[in-house]
Amino acid sequence: MVKRVAVVLAGCGVYDGSEIHEASAVLVHLSRGGASVNMFAPNVDQMHVINHLAGQPSEEKRNVLVESARLARGNIQDLSKLSVKDHDAVIFPGGFGAAKNLCTWAVQGKDCSVNDEVKAALQAFHGEGKPIGLCCISPVLAAKVFPGCEVTVGLENDDKYPDTAGTAAAINQLGCKHVSKSVSESHVDEKNKLVTTCAFMCNAPIHEIFDGIGAMVKDVLKLA
Amino acid sequence: MVKRVAVVLAGCGVYDGSEIHEASAVLVHLSRGGASVNMFAPNVDQMHVINHLAGQPSEEKRNVLVESARLARGNIQDLSKLSVKDHDAVIFPGGFGAAKNLCTWAVQGKDCSVNDEVKAALQAFHGEGKPIGLCCISPVLAAKVFPGCEVTVGLENDDKYPDTAGTAAAINQLGCKHVSKSVSESHVDEKNKLVTTCAFMCNAPIHEIFDGIGAMVKDVLKLA
Repeated sequence: MVKRVAVVLAGCGVYDGSEIHEASAVLVHLSRGGASVNMFAPNVDQMHVINHLAGQPSEEKRNVLVESARLARGNIQDLSKLSVKDHDAVIFPGGFGAAKNLCTWAVQGKDCSVNDEVKAALQAFHGEGKPIGLCCISPVLAAKVFPGCEVTVGLENDDKYPDTAGTAAAINQLGCKHVSKSVSESHVDEKNKLVTTCAFMCNAPIHEIFDGIGAMVKDVLKLA
Repeated sequence: MVKRVAVVLAGCGVYDGSEIHEASAVLVHLSRGGASVNMFAPNVDQMHVINHLAGQPSEEKRNVLVESARLARGNIQDLSKLSVKDHDAVIFPGGFGAAKNLCTWAVQGKDCSVNDEVKAALQAFHGEGKPIGLCCISPVLAAKVFPGCEVTVGLENDDKYPDTAGTAAAINQLGCKHVSKSVSESHVDEKNKLVTTCAFMCNAPIHEIFDGIGAMVKDVLKLA
């Protein structure tokens, strides 16, 4: 049986949308694993638009679904259309978009709110016992929605993972358990069917991030 | 010796910029091959901006260098700064941006003009005997600048390659030789040190396109 996987995007570009190489790696590994993929994104304005050359916010407005369509080569749907019964698993790539457009973690940390459709999708997959894959900063979505769950956002107290310790502390404050894992590993919370890997939370060469995402996708497909 | 490779981008999104997954695959394979990478893009307006959800042009203006910075996670330079002596090879991912922002092939076909900086870079690498890798529609840049060269844009007369035959005919009309190759293969023009692969000119699963680009990158690094 072909595994049917939903991929939820958050724009297109690391600083205000989905991290491009993480999203691409998810799609390559799902394709190699023989899965069928449908992509979704919320039809909302981005929190803001970052000029990625200057590293500064610009005055533009962009829509999360419209920009995510760049990653999806046009083949994407409004997240409100995501039907859990038509999918065996869901994966959330990372990038600041996950922490700005899918929830407000980037500005509010553990006190963030989660987009209603994102929260509903997470709860529905979880409720059906279907696996959820997340990478980079996206595991905070699970930490916020599923108290007591286990996730990784990298290796704590390692210079190559500069933002992991702070994020891990906030995850633990939410009553969840942060598990230190290297960029090449995924962590599986068997009880909650959550699969996480740190991706660009680690300053690693891009092929190592690609491989770590491969480990996450493999575990998601195994659980699906 | 670490091979130093320049990657030239053309925006961010298949319909008006660099094809995202091709560019990402190039970077993953270069990283795995141990190359050091510098990214460049021309500091010019895009020909236009396509709303990738609607598949239609929008009224926006976007800059090729600024949008390419999304793929480069901010680490990119103006193409005018590309120094051939500091690099052992150059690679051009595909996507309509290559045919809209690096040259005007998308609207003028074989009678197109090539952006001055792009042409200068191609001629400089070629003149130094340094390899040039191109995929998808980008091989038309070589066909336009190096009469008599050999390139592939896919398998002619195969339903999975709907635009290959027409593009190949135009390439042949320029006095070049189109060589039919499948999505998994790269073609090496030894004389001109050109390495080409068809990528998304083929309607293939994304992991096959990823692997074909891997073949191209491997051949580029071998020649470098």
